[in-house]
Amino acid sequence: MTNFQETRALFQLPEDVIYLDGNSLGPLPKAAPQRMAEVMQEEWGGDLIRAWNSRGWMSWPDRLGDRIGALIGAAGGSVAIGDTLSIKVFQAVSSALDMNPDRRVILSDSGNFPTDLYMADGLSRLKGAGHEVRVVAPEAVADALDDSIAVLMLTEVDYRTGRRHDMAEMTRIAHQHGVITVWDLAHSAGAFPVDLAGAGADFAVGCTYKYLNAGPGAPAFIYVAPAHQASVAPALSGWLGHEAPFAFDRDYRPADGVRRMRVGTPPILAMAALEAALDVWDGVSLADIRTGSEALMAAFIDTVATVCPTLELASPRDVAQRGSQVSFRHPEGYAIMQALIDHKIIGDFRAPDIIRFGFTPLYLSISEVVRAAETLGDIVNNAVWDQDKYKIRSAVT
Amino acid sequence: MTNFQETRALFQLPEDVIYLDGNSLGPLPKAAPQRMAEVMQEEWGGDLIRAWNSRGWMSWPDRLGDRIGALIGAAGGSVAIGDTLSIKVFQAVSSALDMNPDRRVILSDSGNFPTDLYMADGLSRLKGAGHEVRVVAPEAVADALDDSIAVLMLTEVDYRTGRRHDMAEMTRIAHQHGVITVWDLAHSAGAFPVDLAGAGADFAVGCTYKYLNAGPGAPAFIYVAPAHQASVAPALSGWLGHEAPFAFDRDYRPADGVRRMRVGTPPILAMAALEAALDVWDGVSLADIRTGSEALMAAFIDTVATVCPTLELASPRDVAQRGSQVSFRHPEGYAIMQALIDHKIIGDFRAPDIIRFGFTPLYLSISEVVRAAETLGDIVNNAVWDQDKYKIRSAVT
Repeated sequence: MTNFQETRALFQLPEDVIYLDGNSLGPLPKAAPQRMAEVMQEEWGGDLIRAWNSRGWMSWPDRLGDRIGALIGAAGGSVAIGDTLSIKVFQAVSSALDMNPDRRVILSDSGNFPTDLYMADGLSRLKGAGHEVRVVAPEAVADALDDSIAVLMLTEVDYRTGRRHDMAEMTRIAHQHGVITVWDLAHSAGAFPVDLAGAGADFAVGCTYKYLNAGPGAPAFIYVAPAHQASVAPALSGWLGHEAPFAFDRDYRPADGVRRMRVGTPPILAMAALEAALDVWDGVSLADIRTGSEALMAAFIDTVATVCPTLELASPRDVAQRGSQVSFRHPEGYAIMQALIDHKIIGDFRAPDIIRFGFTPLYLSISEVVRAAETLGDIVNNAVWDQDKYKIRSAVT
Repeated sequence: MTNFQETRALFQLPEDVIYLDGNSLGPLPKAAPQRMAEVMQEEWGGDLIRAWNSRGWMSWPDRLGDRIGALIGAAGGSVAIGDTLSIKVFQAVSSALDMNPDRRVILSDSGNFPTDLYMADGLSRLKGAGHEVRVVAPEAVADALDDSIAVLMLTEVDYRTGRRHDMAEMTRIAHQHGVITVWDLAHSAGAFPVDLAGAGADFAVGCTYKYLNAGPGAPAFIYVAPAHQASVAPALSGWLGHEAPFAFDRDYRPADGVRRMRVGTPPILAMAALEAALDVWDGVSLADIRTGSEALMAAFIDTVATVCPTLELASPRDVAQRGSQVSFRHPEGYAIMQALIDHKIIGDFRAPDIIRFGFTPLYLSISEVVRAAETLGDIVNNAVWDQDKYKIRSAVT
């Protein structure tokens, strides 16, 4: 059994804060500043340019990719680290389109995170010739799959509602129609067990700053199924995806395996924090994570239902259809969330009316989430938010 | 006058190392670890998700973009920070192609860094329909410009030889033919005065880990001339380039100005190091930087010519045609560089036969470069490298 008392001690959390927003930005692993200081002072400062070899910097994307792979059911050598999730979406969808050259449609759903759709839009515009992104409701995806679809691009867990697709089943249906799948694991990796190989996923992407706790703007990752690695032609063909980057050849020749999904120079400092964040997972069972977060979510939902039965649950009631997030819908959602934050209970708001809360037993206890739910219920029951103070802002600036 | 004694004291350099490889990876600014620790512990650790607003993280790409803009002759609001140089090349060339929709040729030269060419190749493949990347010798670029060329994509300073294009003149000729220009400032920014606005450059890109000293894999930047900002349609249309990212709209609407060149979530930790690195430039005159590096290069070239007159200079003899780098050509270049590094004089090797040295008065003195040149001359004169120890490796692994 994973010892969640021990994992909690690995995070630096402000004394009196209940942090239910690890699905936006995971908290600071205590070991990360020290690791960062070592990399900056000893490796960069001490070894200078030599550190690319002496400290193995050049292999960090592989090494850390394998560590993330172990958390998402990916074989060694099938995950590459770097860039942002948006860029990795572009790479994955582009390569997936290449595998279905006679088809033009990228199918997605309205629960996908906007940047996935925007990046696919941009790719479609670049490719022209009738390419399009088709968006349907999450419940309508299976029926919208047919032999005209090139790529199915889905985020496994809906960022607003927490609704979770059945990755294995959707992949199976997609493959029946010859459709290549791209799964976004932004709200999956580190949140519960993921089995990319078992599901037969073709491509997957994800970020490391949510449930993996690697810090603001931490690097993203991309998975390419081993069977596809030798044939995918990277669209973002950067020098570090080259077979021999330091040969400085005129012609691009993709590196073996998933390394061809590298683009530019690896973000070493950001990877130092990522490494410390991944150390937290040593000895952690993702099955235990899921058991723990199911208990946390149940306590939260049940307490809210008791204290404030009118508050509308926006997430599926059935935990099997839910990721590690619970959302409610309220027209004053923004103001409610600000009032909660004033009570040092941190979740977040997603336009137009969603308040959402992320759960992980890595650093959260049942008593905390019960207290958070009681406070939420009180705030809504008593309408204690200040309309002026908490009026909805049109954009974060 | 810039006080280079003071700037030198701002860097952590190993006691007995002479560092002539700041054109690959600049050294550690002493203030960077402390700034990073604050951002990690106080901002990320203390404020958690709230730091995006409370610490202004969301505006860092603008703020740091303006600071870099001031070093390269760019007006405020015309430089965006993020991603890698490879990605920024892709964005710039894609937008430049959009501005010449009836033309298909991206012209570049054989002195461009391979990733620029690879990324343009990948973009051409995506766009199809006769797009091509045409590469000519650096000296042949002006004559190759005609009314069939869509985009001129050049790195101002050749990474192998240090040869420098005349940016203003090449841009002028390009514009005579209706060609849009993309300048890569990888070896320019922080190395000498750059005047993008004065040269009339359309787009520019660069990295911050060379002469700007922001650390391994530090974020890149992109410049879009103010006149083009309202019309460019980003191909890598990520959510943080959206006019209202937190509206989570289905449709992408580009943000005002250069902000549309943002893609994904900003790399906050890497930007903390970048910020500390930019602090070094307060009170530094780039004209003084150039005067100082010209003196350093002259001392280096003259000393090598005296000690070892047979060593072939691969850089232009005329400093007006050279960036801030001096290169020599030798069939045993790799072994020579390893021997130099054993003498704690650090430059680097670029296949097949180039040894190169970068110069900046920020942290280098005349006496150091003279000593480095004498050691280089001695090594070559006496062939003191060990053939087995220093045999050429085919690739960095």
